Formats: sequence, C-alpha cells, structure tokens
Amino acid sequence: MKQIKGPALFLAQFLGKNPPFNSLEAITAWAADLGYKGVQIPTSDKHIFDLELAAESQDYCDTIVGTCANAGVVITELSTHLQGQLVACHAAYADQFAAFAPPELKGHPAETAEWAKNQLLLAAKASAKLNLTGHATFSGALAWHTMYPWPQRPQGMIDDAFAELGRRWTPILNAFDEAGVDVCYELHPGEDLFDGVTFERFLDQVNGHTRANILYDPSHLHLQQIKYLDFIDIYHDRIKAFHVKDAEFQPTGKSGLYGGYQNWLERPGRFRSLGDGQIDFKAIFSKLTQYDFDGWAVVEWECCIKHPEDGAREGADFVNRHIIRPAEYAFDDFTQG
Amino acid sequence: MKQIKGPALFLAQFLGKNPPFNSLEAITAWAADLGYKGVQIPTSDKHIFDLELAAESQDYCDTIVGTCANAGVVITELSTHLQGQLVACHAAYADQFAAFAPPELKGHPAETAEWAKNQLLLAAKASAKLNLTGHATFSGALAWHTMYPWPQRPQGMIDDAFAELGRRWTPILNAFDEAGVDVCYELHPGEDLFDGVTFERFLDQVNGHTRANILYDPSHLHLQQIKYLDFIDIYHDRIKAFHVKDAEFQPTGKSGLYGGYQNWLERPGRFRSLGDGQIDFKAIFSKLTQYDFDGWAVVEWECCIKHPEDGAREGADFVNRHIIRPAEYAFDDFTQG
Amino acid sequence: MKQIKGPALFLAQFLGKNPPFNSLEAITAWAADLGYKGVQIPTSDKHIFDLELAAESQDYCDTIVGTCANAGVVITELSTHLQGQLVACHAAYADQFAAFAPPELKGHPAETAEWAKNQLLLAAKASAKLNLTGHATFSGALAWHTMYPWPQRPQGMIDDAFAELGRRWTPILNAFDEAGVDVCYELHPGEDLFDGVTFERFLDQVNGHTRANILYDPSHLHLQQIKYLDFIDIYHDRIKAFHVKDAEFQPTGKSGLYGGYQNWLERPGRFRSLGDGQIDFKAIFSKLTQYDFDGWAVVEWECCIKHPEDGAREGADFVNRHIIRPAEYAFDDFTQG
Amino acid sequence: MKQIKGPALFLAQFLGKNPPFNSLEAITAWAADLGYKGVQIPTSDKHIFDLELAAESQDYCDTIVGTCANAGVVITELSTHLQGQLVACHAAYADQFAAFAPPELKGHPAETAEWAKNQLLLAAKASAKLNLTGHATFSGALAWHTMYPWPQRPQGMIDDAFAELGRRWTPILNAFDEAGVDVCYELHPGEDLFDGVTFERFLDQVNGHTRANILYDPSHLHLQQIKYLDFIDIYHDRIKAFHVKDAEFQPTGKSGLYGGYQNWLERPGRFRSLGDGQIDFKAIFSKLTQYDFDGWAVVEWECCIKHPEDGAREGADFVNRHIIRPAEYAFDDFTQG
Amino acid sequence: MKQIKGPALFLAQFLGKNPPFNSLEAITAWAADLGYKGVQIPTSDKHIFDLELAAESQDYCDTIVGTCANAGVVITELSTHLQGQLVACHAAYADQFAAFAPPELKGHPAETAEWAKNQLLLAAKASAKLNLTGHATFSGALAWHTMYPWPQRPQGMIDDAFAELGRRWTPILNAFDEAGVDVCYELHPGEDLFDGVTFERFLDQVNGHTRANILYDPSHLHLQQIKYLDFIDIYHDRIKAFHVKDAEFQPTGKSGLYGGYQNWLERPGRFRSLGDGQIDFKAIFSKLTQYDFDGWAVVEWECCIKHPEDGAREGADFVNRHIIRPAEYAFDDFTQG
Amino acid sequence: MKQIKGPALFLAQFLGKNPPFNSLEAITAWAADLGYKGVQIPTSDKHIFDLELAAESQDYCDTIVGTCANAGVVITELSTHLQGQLVACHAAYADQFAAFAPPELKGHPAETAEWAKNQLLLAAKASAKLNLTGHATFSGALAWHTMYPWPQRPQGMIDDAFAELGRRWTPILNAFDEAGVDVCYELHPGEDLFDGVTFERFLDQVNGHTRANILYDPSHLHLQQIKYLDFIDIYHDRIKAFHVKDAEFQPTGKSGLYGGYQNWLERPGRFRSLGDGQIDFKAIFSKLTQYDFDGWAVVEWECCIKHPEDGAREGADFVNRHIIRPAEYAFDDFTQG
Repeated sequence: MKQIKGPALFLAQFLGKNPPFNSLEAITAWAADLGYKGVQIPTSDKHIFDLELAAESQDYCDTIVGTCANAGVVITELSTHLQGQLVACHAAYADQFAAFAPPELKGHPAETAEWAKNQLLLAAKASAKLNLTGHATFSGALAWHTMYPWPQRPQGMIDDAFAELGRRWTPILNAFDEAGVDVCYELHPGEDLFDGVTFERFLDQVNGHTRANILYDPSHLHLQQIKYLDFIDIYHDRIKAFHVKDAEFQPTGKSGLYGGYQNWLERPGRFRSLGDGQIDFKAIFSKLTQYDFDGWAVVEWECCIKHPEDGAREGADFVNRHIIRPAEYAFDDFTQG
Repeated sequence: MKQIKGPALFLAQFLGKNPPFNSLEAITAWAADLGYKGVQIPTSDKHIFDLELAAESQDYCDTIVGTCANAGVVITELSTHLQGQLVACHAAYADQFAAFAPPELKGHPAETAEWAKNQLLLAAKASAKLNLTGHATFSGALAWHTMYPWPQRPQGMIDDAFAELGRRWTPILNAFDEAGVDVCYELHPGEDLFDGVTFERFLDQVNGHTRANILYDPSHLHLQQIKYLDFIDIYHDRIKAFHVKDAEFQPTGKSGLYGGYQNWLERPGRFRSLGDGQIDFKAIFSKLTQYDFDGWAVVEWECCIKHPEDGAREGADFVNRHIIRPAEYAFDDFTQG
Repeated sequence: MKQIKGPALFLAQFLGKNPPFNSLEAITAWAADLGYKGVQIPTSDKHIFDLELAAESQDYCDTIVGTCANAGVVITELSTHLQGQLVACHAAYADQFAAFAPPELKGHPAETAEWAKNQLLLAAKASAKLNLTGHATFSGALAWHTMYPWPQRPQGMIDDAFAELGRRWTPILNAFDEAGVDVCYELHPGEDLFDGVTFERFLDQVNGHTRANILYDPSHLHLQQIKYLDFIDIYHDRIKAFHVKDAEFQPTGKSGLYGGYQNWLERPGRFRSLGDGQIDFKAIFSKLTQYDFDGWAVVEWECCIKHPEDGAREGADFVNRHIIRPAEYAFDDFTQG
Repeated sequence: MKQIKGPALFLAQFLGKNPPFNSLEAITAWAADLGYKGVQIPTSDKHIFDLELAAESQDYCDTIVGTCANAGVVITELSTHLQGQLVACHAAYADQFAAFAPPELKGHPAETAEWAKNQLLLAAKASAKLNLTGHATFSGALAWHTMYPWPQRPQGMIDDAFAELGRRWTPILNAFDEAGVDVCYELHPGEDLFDGVTFERFLDQVNGHTRANILYDPSHLHLQQIKYLDFIDIYHDRIKAFHVKDAEFQPTGKSGLYGGYQNWLERPGRFRSLGDGQIDFKAIFSKLTQYDFDGWAVVEWECCIKHPEDGAREGADFVNRHIIRPAEYAFDDFTQG
Repeated sequence: MKQIKGPALFLAQFLGKNPPFNSLEAITAWAADLGYKGVQIPTSDKHIFDLELAAESQDYCDTIVGTCANAGVVITELSTHLQGQLVACHAAYADQFAAFAPPELKGHPAETAEWAKNQLLLAAKASAKLNLTGHATFSGALAWHTMYPWPQRPQGMIDDAFAELGRRWTPILNAFDEAGVDVCYELHPGEDLFDGVTFERFLDQVNGHTRANILYDPSHLHLQQIKYLDFIDIYHDRIKAFHVKDAEFQPTGKSGLYGGYQNWLERPGRFRSLGDGQIDFKAIFSKLTQYDFDGWAVVEWECCIKHPEDGAREGADFVNRHIIRPAEYAFDDFTQG
Repeated sequence: MKQIKGPALFLAQFLGKNPPFNSLEAITAWAADLGYKGVQIPTSDKHIFDLELAAESQDYCDTIVGTCANAGVVITELSTHLQGQLVACHAAYADQFAAFAPPELKGHPAETAEWAKNQLLLAAKASAKLNLTGHATFSGALAWHTMYPWPQRPQGMIDDAFAELGRRWTPILNAFDEAGVDVCYELHPGEDLFDGVTFERFLDQVNGHTRANILYDPSHLHLQQIKYLDFIDIYHDRIKAFHVKDAEFQPTGKSGLYGGYQNWLERPGRFRSLGDGQIDFKAIFSKLTQYDFDGWAVVEWECCIKHPEDGAREGADFVNRHIIRPAEYAFDDFTQG
C-alpha cells in the first residue's frame, strides 16, 4: 500500500482582491502557514496563473514552481473547471456561463466551445512543463436539462449528446496523453459526467481512453445519494485525483434533493467544511489507501456557513488526521518477528 | 373524521388503440369490473372526452356522466396535466413538449401558452357542468433547468420566473373559482411547483389564492427524498386531490437520484405498482383520515416492470384495504357504553 | 413447540348500549361470527358478567360457559383491570379513578382499596369455578406520578411504595394460588408495574410468588421504546397471557413520547388496529411459539382512527394469519424420511 | 449570520462547601481558568448571589459584575429554575419541592406560589440592573402527573390547568417586559411546558406574549424522542437561550423511556457529559448559526458517570470546537474575487 | 422482460415414510393440489427417482415426466446437492457426510469422490433425457474449515484447494455441457463456493466455463450479511436457478452469526417459511424480472418453527403473489395510445 | 464507581528482530514513551519473557518487574494465547498450529496438548510471582470446524467436545485458583469459546469455576454481529480483562461475514486501529465504568492498513481520551452543596 499525499488546498474559492488572497506568492505562503503541502491552481485568473504563458514558456513554469517552493508547497494539479464546462454548453445555460469566457464571445456558442477546447490544450502543455501527472476539470453538458425523464426524452437524444461530447473531448484527451497527464473529470451535477453511469457512457464514446479519469469528490456523490464508498470499490482504477469536500443532506417535509430553487444555505443538500458534514472520510481514506491511491488529498472549501479561513485551517488538520501511513507488514505475519 | 373515497383510477396510462381501452364506455366498464368506483379523466384525447364540447354543452356532460354511471363509476376529477404543462414552458423543452399541443403551434411559444391557458379555462367550465369540485393539473416550468444551483443563478432569476408563473395562472385560478372548483397542482419534478417550498413561493405570487391547491402524490416526493408524511402534517389544508402511486429508490455505487440519463427501468428511483415500492401508504391513509381528507384515492399506474392490467387490478384491492372507516367514538370514551 | 390459541377478543372496548353489544349472549355471537374462538370478559359490568354471583354460584358460572359455548367461543380469562387499578391508587388520581368504584366510596381511599381487594378475591373464586387458569389485571400505582426523577425522589420513596404494593397484593396472589389461577399483570404506564424492571422489583416484594405473572401487551412496551422482542427472551417464563394490540410512535419536532397533553389521535405515540401500527407481530408470534407459549392471543382494540367493528373483524383474520402450527420434526432430521 | 457566544457555564451543579466552589469570586475564577467566558448564575443561594439585594441595589449588581469581570467572565443569564418551579406546583409534589422554598412555607401552597412569583419579580429587576437580556427558568406544573392519558383526563382538565398557568405567569412576563428581559422557559419533563406543543398551548394562554420564550436544551428533547433538530426549524424565533447538555437513550428489553423508577445511572435515558452522549451538536450549532441565534452556549453538566471537573473542562473545549465563525461571503459569490 | 416461472417446490425436505410423501406420484399430486406447477427432484432416494436408471433409459425418463404431468407439474431441475457435496470433502467432515454415500464407501475418501463424480455424470445424462436445461448442486469443500483466517492460512493453501476443486469439476462441467445443461451451484456455507468471491475464484479455475452457474438462494446470502440485492446486479448473467427461501438474523448480546453451536431454533440466524423472515422478495422478484430471468422460482422449506405442510401451502401462494407479469410497453410510451 | 486503568499495550504484534522491538527493556521504554502505563506480555518468546524461568524464579520475576518499572510501565497480565490454543486442537488444524509448539511435537497431538497444559500451569505460577491477578488466553477448539450446522452435527457431538474441553481445563483453572489469578478467555472465532453462549456452555462443564472468566474484546464480538454493548450488561460479572481493539464490517454484494477466503485487507470484516473502525468505545468505557470494572484497558493493534507504530501511538491517546474519572457525587445530590 502507498500513502496518500496531503494536505493540499484548491485555491479557487479563496482568491480575492485583498492580500494574501490576491497573488500566488502570498496565497501559497498563507496556505503553507496553515500546514498545506500542495496547492491546486485554477487557470482562469491571470493574476494568479497565466495559462497561455505557461503553455509556452518553461521559464514561466519554473518561476511558478519556484514561487510555490519558496512558500513551501508544490502544485498538485492545474484546474480548468470553468473552461472545461464550456467545451460543451447547452444553449439554455449560455448566458449564465458567459462570464467564464472572454466577453467578446458572448452569444457565439461555437467560438466559445473552440476557445474552451483551446484552453484545455494549453493546460495540457502547461501541465507537462510543470511536470504534473494529473489535471482537474469539468466535462460540460449538452443534456443536463433533460436529467429528469419528464418530458420523455426522444429515442437517441442522450446517445447523440454523448457522441458529440466524445467527439469534442477526444482531441483534448489525446493532447493530454502526449503530455503524459491524466484528465480527471470532477463528477458533478450540471455536467454530463455526474455519476458512474454517465462516466461509463462517456468512456464508451472515447473508446476507454486511458487518460479519461475521475476526480473523486464525495460531496457531489453524497448529495445525489450515490453510495460513495461502493463507488471507490467499483472505479478505483480510474480515480486519479481527489477533492476532500464535506456535505450534508437533511430533507424535510417541505423540500428534498431538488432543493426548491433555494440558496445553498436553505437547501436540504448543501456543502460543509470538513468534519461538519456527513461524509465518512475515515472510510474513504481507508479505501483509497487500500487501493494504492497515492495522489493528493486536495481540500475544497465550499461551506455555506463557516468562515473560509476557519475552513481552510481546520481542513489542513483534518486531512493530516485522516492520511494513513500504511503498515509495512501484516499483523499476522509471524515471520517478521 | 371522514372517510376517503375510492378506489378510483386515473385513465391516462391505460388509453390505447384496442378495446376496452379505446372508448370511455368500454374503459369505465373495465375499471368498474376491477372494483373501481371512480375515474379521473384526461382531457387531451377527444375519443375519450371532448373538452371543448364539454365546456359548452350540458347535454354532452350529462351524457358523459351517464356513460360512467352505466358502468358503475363516477368522475372524480378532470385532468389537464399535459395542457397545464404548456401554460409555462421554457424554450429548452419546447420541442419535447410540442406533441401535447396542436401541431400547427409547433415553434410558436406564445400561441402555445395561449392555447394552453384556454384549455384550462375550458376545463373550468366543463368541471362545473360535471358538478366536480377538484381539478388535476401541472404548473408548467420556466426555471426547472436551473434546479441545481450550478451555474450560479443570477440574482432575481427565480423571483422573475415565479412572478411570471403567477401572472399566467391568476386568471385561470379565477376562472376555476367562478366554477367552484379547486385547482390541484401535482407537485412533480420538471414543473416549477415540485415541492412544498416552490408551492409556497407560488402561493405568494397568487396572493394565497384559495383555489391554488395540491394534488398529493407521494411517489414524486419520495423520489426527491422529501419526508412525505411530514408533508401532510404541514400542508393538509391545501391537499384536495390524491394520486395513489408507489415508488422505490435503490441507489448504488454507480448512480443515484439524478439517474445517469437512464430509462425508468434502470434508474435507482423509479415508479412501481401499488405495494411493490417503498411508500408507507398505511401511514398516509391514516394521516389523511386524521386530517379529514374526504377526496378520492385515485390510483395512478406508472410501473416500469409490472403489466398494467395487473397493476390496475391489484391497485383497486390495495386501495380498498387501505381506506379506513373512521371510529365514531374514542376507545376510551366510557360514556358511550 | 406448542401452538398459540386464538383468536380471542377482549370485550371491554365493545360493550355498549345497543345490540349486539349489550348482552353477553349477543356480543359473543357477534364475536364468533367474526371468527373469534375465545373472549376475555371484563367483570365490572353486571349486565355482562356478575362477579359476585359468579364467585359464589357454580350454576351461574355454568350458565355463562354455556352461553359462550352456544355462541361458539370459550372464556380465555376474566379481567379486573379497573378494580386492580384501585387496589393501590395514589391520592393524586383518586378523583379520576372514582368512577370505577361504587359511587358511595368516592372520597374514601381506604374503603376503595378494600373494595378493590375484595373484587380480586371474588375474581379468583369465579375463575376457579369457570375452570380458568389465568387472570388479567392491573397492579395499581402508588408512585407513578414520580416516574420522572425530577423532583428528586427522596431516599427510600420507591422502596416504600413497592413494599406497600407487595403487602396489598400478597393475599390476593395467595387467593389466586388456591384457585389455581395465574395473576397476569398487564405492564402499562400509569401502573407501578409498567416495565420489566418494575415487575422484577414487585416480584422481590412478593418473594417471587409463582402466581405473579405477566400479560404481555407489546403496544405498551413499544410506546415506552422498550425492546419488546428482547422482553420475550428475558421474561417468557412469566408470560401467561397475551394482548394482541398494535401501536405506532411517530415523534416530530413538536412532541415526543410524553405527548404534550394531547388526545390519543394527536399524540406521537398512539394505539392502532392490528396491522396498522409498527409492532412486528410476525416476530412476536415466532418467539412465543419458540418458547412454548400456548395461551390465548387476545385481540385488544383501542385504535384512535379506525372503526371498532372493522378493527374487530380484521383482528380475527390478523391473528389467524399469525398463529403458527409448529413443525413436528426438524427440517434437517433426515431420519424421518 | 451571527456568531454564537461562548463557552459559558451554568454554575448550579458545581456549587459546594469547599473552595473554589463556595464563592462567586472563586468559582468564576475557576471557570475562567477552564476557558469559560460567561457564567449563568443560580439565584437561590445567597452566598453566591443575593437576589433580593440585587433587585434593589445597583451597587450590589455592579459589584457582582466586577467580580465576574475580574475573573474574566460575564454573566449570561440569571436562573430561577427552582423558584419558577414553585410558581405552579401540584399538591402531589409539594413535599418533594418544599426544600426549594423558605422552610416556614412548607404546607402552605398559596403562600409558596406567592413567594415564588415574588422571586421572579425580583429576578426581573435584578436582570435589568445587570443589563441582561434573557432569563432562565422553569414553568412549574399543575398537570404533569396526568401526562399519560390513563386514567382518562376529564374534559377540560388540561385547559383549566393551562388557563391557571397563564394567569400566574402573565404578571411575571409583564414585569420582565418592563425590564427588557426575555423569560426563557427550559422545556423539561416535570414542568407543564415540556415540549413544543405545551409551549404553544401556554403561548395561547398568554396571548403570544413576546417575552415568553424558550431555553433550548436538546437533552430534554432527545430523552422524549422529540426531533430536536426539527424543533429548531420550527421554534427558532422563540429560542433565546441555550443549554449545551448531552444525553443518551439506550433502551433494553427490561426498561424504556419511563425508566422503571431507577436512578439516573441505571435509566436507559440519562444525561452525559458533552461528547459522551448521542446529541448531534454539530448540527445544532449549524442550525442555530443559520438562524442568527447569537445568545450564549451555556454548558450544563449533569453527567451520571464522569467527574464534574472533567465534564466542565471538556465542556469548554467542546463548545469552542463547535462555535462557528460565519462566512462573510458565499463561496459561489464570484464578485468578491 | 420475461416472466419468472412458478411456483415450484423442492421435494427434498418433504420426503417421508407415509403417503403422500413416499412416492413421486403421490407427492407430486399433493404439490399440484397446493398450486405448484413444478417440482425440483432430489436424486438420492431411489423410491422417488432412480438416477442410474434415468441416465440410461429414455423410457424411464418418459415415465417420470408422465407421472408428473398426470399430477399437473413439470420437473424444473434435478438436484444432486448431497452427491455434489462429496465430489470434494475434507477429511474433517468425512464421517458426518458418510451417510450420503453408499455405506461400503465409508472410510474410503478417494472412492467416495469418484462415486460422487459419477453420480454427477449420471445426472447430466438424466437431465438431458428429461429435456432439462439446469441442474442444482453443491460444490463440496476442501477448505471450509479454514474459513476464518485464524490460524493463519499458509501461503497458497486456498489456491491449492481451488485448483483441486477446479480439476475435479471440469470433467463434470464438460459432461453437462454435452448434455446442454447448466450446473447451478447453490452458494452455501459449508461449501467452498459460498459467496460471490469464491464463485469467481472457482470460475477462474474452470476458465470461466459457461456451464458453471449459480443457484441463487437469498437465505444463505442474508445469513452471511451479503447484500443479496446487489448480488443480483453483479451476477445476474450467471444466475440460472432460484431457491425461494426466507431467513432471519436476530443477533443478541449472547450470540451472533457463528451461532454458538446452537440448533437452528436457537441460532440468531435461522431459516424461516416464506414471508416469516427478513428477505425482501418483492425486490428480488423485481430485479430478476428486470434482468430477464425466466427460470423457476423453486420454494425450499427449511423453517425451524412452522409446520412443513403450512410452509408448503403458504409458499405456493407467496410465489404466486410475487411473480410479476411484465409490462408489454413502457408507461410513458405515448405512441401506444 | 471505579476508574479503568490504562492505557496498556499488548506487546505480541510488535515484537520484531530490530530494536526497540527485540528486547523487553527496549520495547517497554518505547511503549512508555508513547504514553503507555502498562504492558501485556506474551510468553512464547524467550527473548522477551522466559516462562519456565519465571515460574520457578522469584528473582527473575523481580528483575522483569524492575525492567518494566525502569521503563515506567507495569505488567497488566501475561498472555498464553498461543499455548492455550493448543490445550485443545482439532486434528484438522494441527499442521497450521504446529508452529506454536516445540518442533519436536509436530505430529504428536497428545504430547502437544500435554505441553500446552504445562505451559498454562507455568503461567499460573509465574503470574503469582509477578503479583498479577488476571491472565489472558485462548480456550482452543475441538468443534470449531462444525460451527455451521451443515453437515448436521450428530446428536451429542458438541456435548462431548465441551465435556472434553472442561476436563482439560479444570486442572488448569484449579492451578490458577491456587495462584490467585483469574483465567480470562478471549472469546474469539476459531476457539470453542467464541461467544456468550459457548462461554456459558463451558462454564457448565467446569461447574461455574470462579476462575473461568472473560477477556472482553469487542472487535471479535462485532465481527460476529453480536451486540457487544448488551454483552457487557449480561456478562460484566465475569469480565476481568479488556482488549481495546477496533474493527469494521462493510459487507458487499460479493462477500459477507465468512469473507470468501480472502486476506484481512480484502475481507468485509477486518480489524482496524483504534478510532478507524466502527466500535462504539465511548459506550463501552461508559458501561465498564458503570459496572465498576477497574482492570486495564489493553490496546491490541491488528490493523490491516495503518502502520503499527502509528496505531500504537494513537492507541495510547485514544484510551486516555476514553477513560472516565468517575463522579464522586450525583449531580442531583443537593446535599453536597
């Protein structure tokens, strides 16, 4: 057995206008001070990380690595969640997602998808230059609005959507393969890859591409009521990245899993800081260790109640308490005595 | 306490090309033979029920009542589920719902909504002529595609959607009020009124209209993981109609409540024939009786496995076994002895 | 293994002013017609059963037995629940219980207790003349108002109460012993014998009297949240009578086991007709059969919702479905082949 | 959202004959040393706090505040649990409660009630002089001995009891209103206000008096099997004080919620030190924070096993770990970046 | 979807010395009278079925089929449970199993295994002559005594045992393949094939032999605490036979799954008649129908309490109530209307 | 109430070839450094503890005690698990257990049993010289291979096995009685004493010998699904030693409690480091304290995942957090104030 690495922190929810949240140098120092040993870096904010530059310049990448090293952290993965989302975006959501693409592309879906694809290709190159082996992203969605089977989905509608999704992602997966990097899709409502079944469906469309992998985030599985421990038993071969995020689901007589169009704070299903939700992380870390996962445990904070700085600080401790140093011999191996 | 009426059968899923499923006369006879005492009649198939005619002609309505009486059943409610759906239909679903409106309206959303509104007004008149007191329908949906809060919903988006929904339904509710008939919205995923929270939100927009009521169908609540027994405790004053439909939810490590774009048979959450699912109808009939509900228990069959004729036959027995004749005195009322 | 007898019906809740509920002849015929084979007879209504007379006259007893036999039922036990209650009655409840004693005793606690004791002695004699082997009653209560430990109970208060309870019941138990009849206390809130612990405490006070036994009624155990199946494992040697009564407990955010001074219909814990509550009778009948209980399964109807006549009719069927004819050989006894 | 204050300690169970438990100065220093920032002070022990004096003397109050400030704590609320209990005391419990009133009042129920009322009026004045905004007390009980509906409660008995309770408390509530202080009833078995239903019933009797509020103590709700999380959803507007006390319920085949007249250690339901019971405090602190409760989290120690000083020490840590610093912006508020 | 066949009855536990249990003619008539449509026939009692003769004589087989047809039943499968057990029998159990082989083989393990193998080869031939497509048996066990990993199993011990098991069964499986018959191993404690993991291990040893299949009996899975519904999801392709047997597991503080060397009646885990245990047959029949299983639902009665004739009679009704006639069209297939 | 002693560590799983695990001096120092105050010492490794010498030499024993004292620990109990196992060893397991006896005894079962008996007699003497009051061991097994009731156990087989077991252990128990030491059998699958029922059966064979007691290890009870908290309620009088070991049981659709011949890591039931499993130690320490157990809490590490040194370090903290200092007075004892 191998040991999970960590703790690391996904920086996206912490970026802000004020120090130490407004520069890579300052925010990595802050993270390291809390005990983090790694950071997952979003790529859509140039002040933090310039994706175009990184894709082309080994010097820039070396500087970034150096900045992190000075703070005392390493980069675990780059993230293109926002861009990946736009590789495939159904018209119904175009306006809401427009803010994640350059403003001039608003109202131009084909150009937006092209731009998004290009962002992913840049991320492949940048990841290689940074010596990374994994990448975190979203799949985007062409069919999400038909998730519930009413109105009845016409014969073939989902097949067509996934065929198109496969077509769009295949060149990207190939680019990441050249870069020696695994694409790790965060299975997430709102994306077409949101559970094991949809991941398998996608895998069929990309012929089981070895670079098509999973970022395991139990919070999104739990809020779908998927058995997230069984998920590891089934998919551990494809789990190459890990978001440590907690969640709780407290349904009432008024509202349930679909949430009544309420905000996160009022929804029966909502994200929480580590240890404040219902996820059994003790079992998750045990199973991932058992299956020799040795990637990073990356804390993602999206709590609807607790102060983010408390969430970040407690998160580092939480992960430290959960990482397991594996035994080197079995307890009933009498020959070691 | 009063006694729930029943069993009744919602005819929609049984209509077909062959006898006895192709005429009101034959299908009501078939239903009565199974033990049903009432039928809920869909209004979108003229061979069964001509809504335009019924709205205008007392003679026609009397004939319909007579046909039912000959078979040995009464009409419990008319249903405009399909038309109600089109009172408010977001563009993303226009094609899928087009089949429920006249073909010439395809691609004309405003005209479709107007047509749908008119259907509801006809249903109000027809219900009055049939001496009915309740009506079953769907609310339609302007915001359902944003049910999950990703992408983030812009400030006010849901408010706007419900304001519009209220505007569209207010004249309809007024028409039903004139007819002396309660509009009973079946809370249902895919509609904007899908749980208690959204029903309350709608009620605010129609100023607590007394004719805005609920068709209680526990299957849709259970498949949202809403506590459907608590729901009765909270909303019993507004529950004026009742679909007796069963459901089961068996999540796995591969798929959960969102269902992985699978068909009903494969989904962890799916409808079942009465008694084959997980709904605690013993408790539901107890609570509805306790709260003096004396409407009809209308069986709705949408089982993904069992033969519909078996579902219909067993459904009548099931409801008969569950209807409670209330006690006339309390067991510890020693004065009655 | 032996077979449980039944179904029988406890008549108390059915007595009334109108036929067939106003004479033993008529009510036993009605019960037999529903499928009952036995009746448990209350002894506080002379129109049904004259306890004084029965205690003295074998002829009267033979007539009673004959009346029952004509109807097609036998007597399972006599009941002195109401009189047993008054063998020990704390002053706080004297007014409320006064209606169960002769009116002239109101306000005379000592005389009331003496009267109650005498009723029990009569019941012993009558039971013998009727060839019965068991008797159903309540223990009465001296300490029930101190069930919750606030205010703190003074040292020895409960000891004193049980010592007095033992003193009062010992002569009664002896009388029943002479009559060859087991006294079966229905463990019941409001009595000092309301669970296993209090029964054991009482048993200590009466030196383990062999006639001090238990009427097992799972409804009262369930509404205390006692594990009523484990109860059988522990106390089966003392279980000599059995009330088949169902119950449900549905606590909410407003009220729990103490019930908020509400009526039965509103209380989270309430009695129900057989099959409508939460009691696992399948397991109860299995365990009682396993432990060779061969007494009567006596239906007690105290449902707060369902019509009593439906409860009685369904109760007979329910018990018939639950009584187990024991196997005569073990399934893996190959020697029988 | 606001932040819950704490940790604070209810001093009642710690007062003793030996230092540091025998003076306000010493005990507050001890509490502060354990990490407490507030104390809830009982008012029935003059050595600790002289209620009569405090009601009249601003100097005395200032001195008390100063003593606390020197130790490093503030006063959260005064407590008149013992006196409130005697505002309404049914005769059956008079002896057991006599120790809480002046000895000369023993056997004089009317005078005792008058004395108790006066104590409450003094507490209102003292609270005002101490600049407090909340007050902790018990309601007393006129009907508790009839909590179980056997013997049947005469028509109107509970109505009369609550009408009388309302009459007695109305002038007290008015006095607290003048003082600008909320009366917070600890809902507690043995009192007439023991759950949500009885609190509502009382509220009706005092015309929804705005000063009639709730001290939320989940231990007493859990030991009634009330859903104590739903309780917060329903009553959060009236929750103005908070006892952090843990409890466990482990029923067996011998005993259940009524406890078999056993002592706390043997009862299936019993209080425990914080973290040793079954209460989900993580969820409680989340809900109270969500609903903007910003009162004090006051530790009450009534463990039947653990040493009180350990309970107090661990309690401070426990509360510190559970208080949530609320987020200042939502995690998906991209505009803050 | 296809429809499960049934009800059928496994005759083994019913054979006896007295009519109608002592001849195939009489016992099949008895079974048919109870409503059974099929029988599973054990092959170790010549009075009922002569295996040697059947393997060689088409006439005999035709006569047997005719006897069954006269009674109104068909043969579902032959059973060689007892002989299969002896194909591989560890020395520790030789004495206990000796009764199932010819007496002269006692003490001769190799000859016993050879005899057992031959019995299976005969069963293959007989099944072909009877036009059967499935066969029910046990795998035998070489390693069962080492089921618990204490004492530590030497490296390779289990590998060796399964290799040997594969060697012994391969020629038998081949013979059944020639006969066009599936071998259905009842996964059962005491056999080396007792769960899914051991079945897979065996399958590896026989190179995934297409004739190596599973007799699904949920009672044995439940008493191992295996998730017997998930089992169907995983192994449905190999499930070719089905025993409908119920079971319950009620652990206590004294005994658990290993049962304390107690008899069936006292064990926490024990078999029960259909409907008296804990198995969710509603879900099992749904899943098997969903996966197109169209074999026989064969009742196996091994209840430790109930009379076998009651078990058999109720079993036929139970299966009839559970078999699902599949829907011919989906409920939302509007095109059928 | 008394206080449980601890933490202590069972040294068996930590002995090794390298320092500090290869000498008593070093390993006790290492343990003490982790916070342990006691050690349980295995007696089968002469480098650590020479059982023959200890049985005869008070000097040697004093030296051992001194070595421990120097390190800062005391001896809690000696362990003869491996030798006790061989007091009664069924032939089927002889080879696997041979490694625990002198090599020359291999293949000589009678001599092995004699040797084992002698080891136990030595342990009694050594324990006395070390002033110990308890001893930890296994019972051995003559019948374990027949734990599952298939094949049917011949009449009397288990009776005979336990009679023999009683005969073998009686002289040993007598020797320990002379030494003033309790024999504490670790109830454990693989031994004939593996649950409460088998312990009682054994107790009957040794006439309720007062020295026949229990080493309570909840992990072995949990992995049998025994209610390990109820176990304490029933057997607390005989619990004289305590292993603090955690376990988890996560059954799947493939494998359950019998484990499919898999290794510990793959088995659904497996041991875990303290806090990583499912055992409710909070409740265990509460119950043991409640029942006045004042023996040692001895950590046993047999985790299949975590590094043993982490397990040992965390184990000391874990026990420290769980030991309860009992209250000296009850919280409602107002007389202490």
